Amino acid sequence: MALLFTHATLLPMTAEAGAPRTFTGAVGVEENRIALVTADEAAVEAFRAAHPSLREFDCRGRLVMPGLVNTHCHAAMTLQRSYADDIALMEWLNDYIWPFEGRQTPDDVALGMTLGIAEMLLGGITSFVDMYYCEDRCVEVAEGLGIRALLGCNYFDSNIDAVMPEIGRAVAAAASGSGRVRVAVAPHSPYTVSPDNLVRGREAAARWGLPLMIHLAETVDEARIVEERYGCSPVEHLDRLGMLSPRTIAAHCIHLSDRDIATLVARGVTVSHNPQSNMKISSGVAPIERLRRAGACVTLGTDGPCSNNDLDLWEELRTAVFLQKSATGDPCALPAAEALRMVTVDGARAMGCAEGELGVLREGALADLVVVDLQKPHLQPVHDVVSNLVYCGKASDVETVVVDGRVVVDHGRIVGLDLGQLYREAAAAAARLAGA
Amino acid sequence: MALLFTHATLLPMTAEAGAPRTFTGAVGVEENRIALVTADEAAVEAFRAAHPSLREFDCRGRLVMPGLVNTHCHAAMTLQRSYADDIALMEWLNDYIWPFEGRQTPDDVALGMTLGIAEMLLGGITSFVDMYYCEDRCVEVAEGLGIRALLGCNYFDSNIDAVMPEIGRAVAAAASGSGRVRVAVAPHSPYTVSPDNLVRGREAAARWGLPLMIHLAETVDEARIVEERYGCSPVEHLDRLGMLSPRTIAAHCIHLSDRDIATLVARGVTVSHNPQSNMKISSGVAPIERLRRAGACVTLGTDGPCSNNDLDLWEELRTAVFLQKSATGDPCALPAAEALRMVTVDGARAMGCAEGELGVLREGALADLVVVDLQKPHLQPVHDVVSNLVYCGKASDVETVVVDGRVVVDHGRIVGLDLGQLYREAAAAAARLAGA
Repeated sequence: MALLFTHATLLPMTAEAGAPRTFTGAVGVEENRIALVTADEAAVEAFRAAHPSLREFDCRGRLVMPGLVNTHCHAAMTLQRSYADDIALMEWLNDYIWPFEGRQTPDDVALGMTLGIAEMLLGGITSFVDMYYCEDRCVEVAEGLGIRALLGCNYFDSNIDAVMPEIGRAVAAAASGSGRVRVAVAPHSPYTVSPDNLVRGREAAARWGLPLMIHLAETVDEARIVEERYGCSPVEHLDRLGMLSPRTIAAHCIHLSDRDIATLVARGVTVSHNPQSNMKISSGVAPIERLRRAGACVTLGTDGPCSNNDLDLWEELRTAVFLQKSATGDPCALPAAEALRMVTVDGARAMGCAEGELGVLREGALADLVVVDLQKPHLQPVHDVVSNLVYCGKASDVETVVVDGRVVVDHGRIVGLDLGQLYREAAAAAARLAGA
Repeated sequence: MALLFTHATLLPMTAEAGAPRTFTGAVGVEENRIALVTADEAAVEAFRAAHPSLREFDCRGRLVMPGLVNTHCHAAMTLQRSYADDIALMEWLNDYIWPFEGRQTPDDVALGMTLGIAEMLLGGITSFVDMYYCEDRCVEVAEGLGIRALLGCNYFDSNIDAVMPEIGRAVAAAASGSGRVRVAVAPHSPYTVSPDNLVRGREAAARWGLPLMIHLAETVDEARIVEERYGCSPVEHLDRLGMLSPRTIAAHCIHLSDRDIATLVARGVTVSHNPQSNMKISSGVAPIERLRRAGACVTLGTDGPCSNNDLDLWEELRTAVFLQKSATGDPCALPAAEALRMVTVDGARAMGCAEGELGVLREGALADLVVVDLQKPHLQPVHDVVSNLVYCGKASDVETVVVDGRVVVDHGRIVGLDLGQLYREAAAAAARLAGA
């Protein structure tokens, strides 16, 4: 069914640089594409006439913008949300996370993924990049809930032989779907995967035509271990192995030399910055201003619900800005408008889309958009709607969400999912997996 | 009317140390006091029988906890929200903030205050500490909306003669009210108010029996200026002038020596930590872990909507935790449970309440409480409800709010205020004041 959003403040995110342009107008959707972006009432009337059965949304007092893109998470870890916080790393892994994960079945992962996708859609995330196990099982979950996804099959040295066939199954499942869900190869990190197994991943990605994703330069320990083993930085190590390209998403990228930054830029790698996770785990502060000035493609991710503990990209957006201003000592660092590009236009690059295909309101682009209700005390008055969105916008301000031309959140309600039932199942699984 | 909240997860915040205790039970309210906190169904039945006309809230799937206390803000600056962001300090003040404030009338301040209080109440803030001008005018605003407030009459050297009578008027207005609104004397800072005028403020506070509040050790420049003028740190300077006592609230407290910390602890000063403002303005990171270990009373504030840009204490709560973990490099720093005390039990001290009088669910305490809807994807499953609240809880999860025994937010709707009309008035005032 065609969709028409009228009388909205439109934030198309199509301007090349400077403050994003806004205007009052309408957006029309046909099939899975944006077919109309206009301030011209006659064009709106013509769209109505051409689509007699369209569904119209009166967006007075509302803003329509591209859906948000979350470029790094482990969404199924919702089942471990708040399971083990404020604990030192090795105790956290040994006594909590690994035993919990050891008990998880593919059905548990699918359940956790369902809860994670529900949270993301309700908060205006229309595309996400995931990295976990049982991603073959999660293809159908993402397909069913209507979100756009890039699912990275995560492996370590210990389980690479089991994961390689999983990638094949995931690719097959995605190929028989809508095209919204794609698969990636996801070696865990330069210090937990051997050079041989990193190359196996790269070769598998090449064979299937898939992107790569990896945790990179996240901790001081990682940099030390890689230096000891290979005599270079984590970035150099991956570069020597041919792992870095425009089809690589590197999460975290905290401990970087100027040379590392130049390498990431030269290879066209997409960086996924995860500020709240980095703060909570005390990993350090990623040099986002240095990366941006060098010309890197920097995007934003929530990381998993164990280390954050939610999947709220609005909070990451302003935390990214706050953290750069704080860490650089420059209150002008990372302006709001630039940060907004990270979760829309630049995020779309991480999803493997050509420029103008996703992350913008433009005729011909994929129809992923959100309606934000501006009639909230924290969003009034409106001197600058972009500042209001970045500094004050909340997941709960998202009213309606469209992915691929389909309404997936309708006035605050997720379509086709019984949340009460989901919470009961999640509670039962969480209790069992915690060994309670 | 008596109130009864049943079948709730109760978070009383009455435990002295360690993880806050929760249990399933009921809270009863009589007049402006909590009259019942129990897990005993017979006690609930007796409360019902004794109050035949009570209003009952079925809180299945909900949590009831003390209302949040925001210990530093400039709430009326909602009218300047997002008016001037990502700009260097002196340009920001000279070209934007001061001309804007120069055009404001007392009615504008009352309007901005109304919008700020609406935002705070909807987000579960039941008490706030404010610092601005025209606070005499704001007494009636706070009274009318039902929030609990400590309104600090802010002065500089340039306007102290005008503000002193304002304090008198504010005290008179508060004295004729409900008792929920109190007044404080608020010299701006050690570097913008002369020693003589600081002492005048201290003497005025003593005369009227009022607390003091002040910005303290917020920037490197402030420390430098005070050192140059008075040969000591801002904390020492205030201490020599007798400004520091258990009735002093000091906002920010970023640039502190060990000796400064010892002085703040010895004098019993309440520190208001404002992490998002400090990050956005690049002021530095307050040494909250050092303050806590030394035994300081540390609370949390949002600061004003110019420097944040909202009045959301849930975000401050987790940003405080994230920032300490990041700045100290210790993922165990400032655990969630301790942070929750800052916005409840410790915040109540800033409001001048005796221990157990506010910020807790305890029979006999003032009836300031919030109902949090846990039936949200980001709050499920519940391994640890305190972690969920601190790391994932949002202003929009607050469903119902009671202040002084009166329902002021009822299932997400603020009582007795036409928000649409308020937004129209705020928009008109904002446009006029911006000189647009």
